[in-house]
Amino acid sequence: MKILIEISYDGTSYSGWQIQPNADTVQERIENAIKNLTGETVRVTGSGRTDAGVHAERQVAHFETESTLPPEKFKNAINSCLPEDIRVISSRAVPENFHAVKSAKKKTYVYTVLLKENPLLTRYAYFSGCSLDLSSMKRAAKLFVGTHNFKGFSATGGSAKTFERTIYSFKIKKVGEKITFTITGNGFLYKMVRMIVGACVLAGQRKITLQEIKVALLSCEKPKNALTLPAKGLCLAHVVYPEFKKK
Amino acid sequence: MKILIEISYDGTSYSGWQIQPNADTVQERIENAIKNLTGETVRVTGSGRTDAGVHAERQVAHFETESTLPPEKFKNAINSCLPEDIRVISSRAVPENFHAVKSAKKKTYVYTVLLKENPLLTRYAYFSGCSLDLSSMKRAAKLFVGTHNFKGFSATGGSAKTFERTIYSFKIKKVGEKITFTITGNGFLYKMVRMIVGACVLAGQRKITLQEIKVALLSCEKPKNALTLPAKGLCLAHVVYPEFKKK
Repeated sequence: MKILIEISYDGTSYSGWQIQPNADTVQERIENAIKNLTGETVRVTGSGRTDAGVHAERQVAHFETESTLPPEKFKNAINSCLPEDIRVISSRAVPENFHAVKSAKKKTYVYTVLLKENPLLTRYAYFSGCSLDLSSMKRAAKLFVGTHNFKGFSATGGSAKTFERTIYSFKIKKVGEKITFTITGNGFLYKMVRMIVGACVLAGQRKITLQEIKVALLSCEKPKNALTLPAKGLCLAHVVYPEFKKK
Repeated sequence: MKILIEISYDGTSYSGWQIQPNADTVQERIENAIKNLTGETVRVTGSGRTDAGVHAERQVAHFETESTLPPEKFKNAINSCLPEDIRVISSRAVPENFHAVKSAKKKTYVYTVLLKENPLLTRYAYFSGCSLDLSSMKRAAKLFVGTHNFKGFSATGGSAKTFERTIYSFKIKKVGEKITFTITGNGFLYKMVRMIVGACVLAGQRKITLQEIKVALLSCEKPKNALTLPAKGLCLAHVVYPEFKKK
């Protein structure tokens, strides 16, 4: 039986999603929890990796099990074997042809920037030491929407073979001293969201021009001024599947 | 010169506000920061203690200094000697007769309850494992407004000599799966907010009746069913002073 789980986690204490030697990862924690529960060694496949320190409001993963536990019972059962900062928020059976990576159509990430230091938000946001011009950032954001080669806005070390991705929407919203960047695309390269939002933040500080961003997208090379924002401000908001509509 | 500072902190890692032997406290961190800065051993007097694990969005404190640093510069200077989870958010000179405890007129606390587990909010909220009837909780909350003897809704071990306090307002608001309890009063006894909100939560589970709450307030004795909610859901929102209006 193939089970789909939705998972929420605070990434602060983890070396990201993906299992690595000598590191505490979300994937390994969930695989161990399932092993404790069913005795099976399973591979839990997530919709994508999140980097060390990145959070998830609604990550999606699947795994195969021989267990006779009703699918919707996996949620509480797995949670009983997980730390408080990782929670399965739903579980259900999916068809055999479902695949958390291959079936994913869209992913949405949210990046949070604070204009004023706030210890109650600091785990989940980047504090900008200087003011940011909102309309410049919005103009910069528009340049990324559409299908582009994002090589100039990704870090080396990723596993991607191609650099073309499509951004469906990229919205910037300011509420009080908090600015959120919400970006939806068909997939993202290594550190791509943090570099795109970084470019918008530089635009908001007038440290990069719209022209320089355009050139970087066309030339597939990093702009002269590039900024990779810290992982802690980034959160995987949700993943959309064709047969898996978010309510 | 007397300096007033507003402080925001994530209480998770601290044994509360007040200095104690062999404990890491917010007060000691701030006093040490000022000592690093000015060389002076000062007493930083907070508007009140917050218990271990309780947070503050806007705690207020004062201290005396001989330093010639301009008052508004203390903010950044103290912050440079503090960990990221404690931030001074403003500093200014106040008249000699200002006293963070004695001058305080009103305090507002917010308690957050979650109806659905959320690792991104779990440091700042209590997760209720069962559903809560909102209108029952609102009826219970109304009983606490006004001047009462709150001995039955406080824990032993506090330093208060009298148990009469006035609650000016107590509002309950539900947004999605999050319920916030906002309570404003002239002062609060040891664990009083956590026990009053606890009584409302019990009312929402129909585990305490309005009559039982009324009797507990009149008799000054704990109700049969009493619940002290965990510290982590509690946050000191702000303190009001006569000459210190919050914008």
